[in-house]
Amino acid sequence: MTTIATASAPADPSALVTTLAQAARRAQRQLAALSSDARAAALVRAADALRAAAPAVLAANARDLAAGEARGLSGAMLDRLMLDEARLSAIADAVAAVAALPDPVGQVIDTAARPNGLALSRVRVPIGVIGIIYESRPNVTADAATLCVRAGNAAVLRGGSEAVHSNTAIHAALAEGLVAGGVPAEAVQLVPSQDRACVGAMLTASGLIDMIVPRGGKSLVARVQADARVPVLAHLDGINHTYVHHAAEPAMAERIAVNAKLRRTGICGAMETLLIDSAYPAAPALVAALIDAGCEVRGDGRAAALDRRVIAASDEDWDTEYLDAVLSVAVVDGLEDALAHIARHSSGHTDAIVTADAETAERFLAEVDSAIVMHNASSQFADGGEFGLGAEIGIATGRLHARGPVALEGLTTYKWQVRGAGQTRP
Amino acid sequence: MTTIATASAPADPSALVTTLAQAARRAQRQLAALSSDARAAALVRAADALRAAAPAVLAANARDLAAGEARGLSGAMLDRLMLDEARLSAIADAVAAVAALPDPVGQVIDTAARPNGLALSRVRVPIGVIGIIYESRPNVTADAATLCVRAGNAAVLRGGSEAVHSNTAIHAALAEGLVAGGVPAEAVQLVPSQDRACVGAMLTASGLIDMIVPRGGKSLVARVQADARVPVLAHLDGINHTYVHHAAEPAMAERIAVNAKLRRTGICGAMETLLIDSAYPAAPALVAALIDAGCEVRGDGRAAALDRRVIAASDEDWDTEYLDAVLSVAVVDGLEDALAHIARHSSGHTDAIVTADAETAERFLAEVDSAIVMHNASSQFADGGEFGLGAEIGIATGRLHARGPVALEGLTTYKWQVRGAGQTRP
Repeated sequence: MTTIATASAPADPSALVTTLAQAARRAQRQLAALSSDARAAALVRAADALRAAAPAVLAANARDLAAGEARGLSGAMLDRLMLDEARLSAIADAVAAVAALPDPVGQVIDTAARPNGLALSRVRVPIGVIGIIYESRPNVTADAATLCVRAGNAAVLRGGSEAVHSNTAIHAALAEGLVAGGVPAEAVQLVPSQDRACVGAMLTASGLIDMIVPRGGKSLVARVQADARVPVLAHLDGINHTYVHHAAEPAMAERIAVNAKLRRTGICGAMETLLIDSAYPAAPALVAALIDAGCEVRGDGRAAALDRRVIAASDEDWDTEYLDAVLSVAVVDGLEDALAHIARHSSGHTDAIVTADAETAERFLAEVDSAIVMHNASSQFADGGEFGLGAEIGIATGRLHARGPVALEGLTTYKWQVRGAGQTRP
Repeated sequence: MTTIATASAPADPSALVTTLAQAARRAQRQLAALSSDARAAALVRAADALRAAAPAVLAANARDLAAGEARGLSGAMLDRLMLDEARLSAIADAVAAVAALPDPVGQVIDTAARPNGLALSRVRVPIGVIGIIYESRPNVTADAATLCVRAGNAAVLRGGSEAVHSNTAIHAALAEGLVAGGVPAEAVQLVPSQDRACVGAMLTASGLIDMIVPRGGKSLVARVQADARVPVLAHLDGINHTYVHHAAEPAMAERIAVNAKLRRTGICGAMETLLIDSAYPAAPALVAALIDAGCEVRGDGRAAALDRRVIAASDEDWDTEYLDAVLSVAVVDGLEDALAHIARHSSGHTDAIVTADAETAERFLAEVDSAIVMHNASSQFADGGEFGLGAEIGIATGRLHARGPVALEGLTTYKWQVRGAGQTRP
């Protein structure tokens, strides 16, 4: 905390970020030298400190909420910002839960013995310094920092201005707990300036910050992806398809489609386009069930013929992530046609098939090139917790490093350890 | 080949690269649908076609060599460019060897069964379209294309202008063999223009090219790293350290140091800095052995005292990759001092310790944060072939995706396959 206080608000955002990241790098080396148990114990202390700091955090949050109301933030924005006893308790519980997750650091990925006697092993190690750029949800301060520390990484956090008091209070509590547990305070740093140039400085901090994780809406992620010179772990869009094959069991198809679209419409795993096979016998009932459940359906010509309440889809609908109770529906002629539609319009997040035909399902799982492909399941399962990862730093739709839900393993890299007995290369 | 011929030399490099990459993307989908055996068989045909095309390739190479001599290329440059029967045969053998490597595509990384019955598996899949930007060595045309195709990727190749005829002839032969084996010609494309703006277009082809691999000298790699908006797999420097601990066995230390520096001075795994423990008893003999073997030694004050032939090192020497029979030597006070020197000056490629003390060795292997860390072995072993990977597309010193020698596995990513029985998310 002292470092942050002394480093606060210099004139030059680039110098500020450099100072923070260099301190984070030094702290990361100390953090990596701690045992896994010591890192876990420090995180348990951080969770306790967060619970103990509830009055201060809630008071800080009240200041943010008042400022947000004065600035005219929407109800949805204010809800994202709002903390209460229950939410704060859930945040602290999540910190403790991450502390209890198995540590990927030190895991041996594989080993090899060479004919010359050299023994090779690939061992997981922390990535280093992770930059997190996020918007109004103050829980990200705790969630992201905790995942980073569990995997031996330092975190440089840059939250949104609307949550500045909440983030500062949460960060102070976490840091207090971590320091009491032997983790250097500089291992988790909150950028103490709301100057937007700090974000730009983080995005271009090659060699200082090893990876950037943006957490927030599409415009934030798009800006980060466009401007970053540091590797980014992110998804931009979740334009997710569910293909109801002609051999789908109708009750299952209806249940999955309604859940995939409507359980929560605002999450990135929500279905945005339904593809109905032209040979599927229960298509009118499927569309009716979605509309009856409160969904607006925008269809192509053949989908419009299924129910008179279907609205005509425009070309843009096939590339739109509604994040709302709106769905585009196309009728396709068999698997090939479905695969072609998905190849053209999917954002590579999560695409699913519903069918009782195992061979068709396996072809879909093999040929659809998305981070997550599903058979007979709701795309809303696209989530680190649901996948058993214990948490997630995000869902990646890029192709390198980590794909789909990313938790602790995605916050590590590896090194090669080579053990010899004096070998020289001929 | 037809595509490339018809696409040759349009006015706009960006449009050219877009056209090539889009064709590569389509071809990659067809390539990925082939079986592993079919891809391997096509590569064997490509190797055969390359052997059959030897007269044409050598004639093309002679044109490049004549042009290079006329342009006054150095002897080293001309040697890198030169092909003869033996070199071409070795290139074809390498293509066939990659064909025989185990295919990473389809490998199941791990599986999980969730309490709700969902069955998860992570399966390796090709990355997609790989851009290779390289300089004068025409073997890269075959090596890189072959590794990409083995792992189901399309390749967009951009070789140096000095090797344009050689590259064109090698590419034509490869493409002929691949097409005969059922691989679409557009899966391996050679950018048909030497306009330097094509390199810039490749580096910024987000969404069209999934990863760029630069192969060449430091200035090429630096430009690629500075300008790329596409992920890059590369190493910039191999500033590799060997630390001779006080408990090193002197004969082994001498043998390893001489090999690590002098076996081949121009490779990225060569030692550039030797750290000698101040308590190591045989330090003068170690330095003398290196100088006697033909190495120029630049030392700090204490190293200079070990042999009167040592030249005083400047500050820059500790951050210099000589790639020559030149070595910087520092005397350090124990492991901590060595670790601090390495943390400050290593480029994160390969660092080694020589010691008979197992505990010190393990601390070194754990705490040095480089892609490759070695105990009692020459850093010249830092090589995909020596590591048993069968080949390498490069050595990565970045921290994400793949690190150290990268071969087929590093040319893949993974997807999550989820198999359900109608599950919806509560």
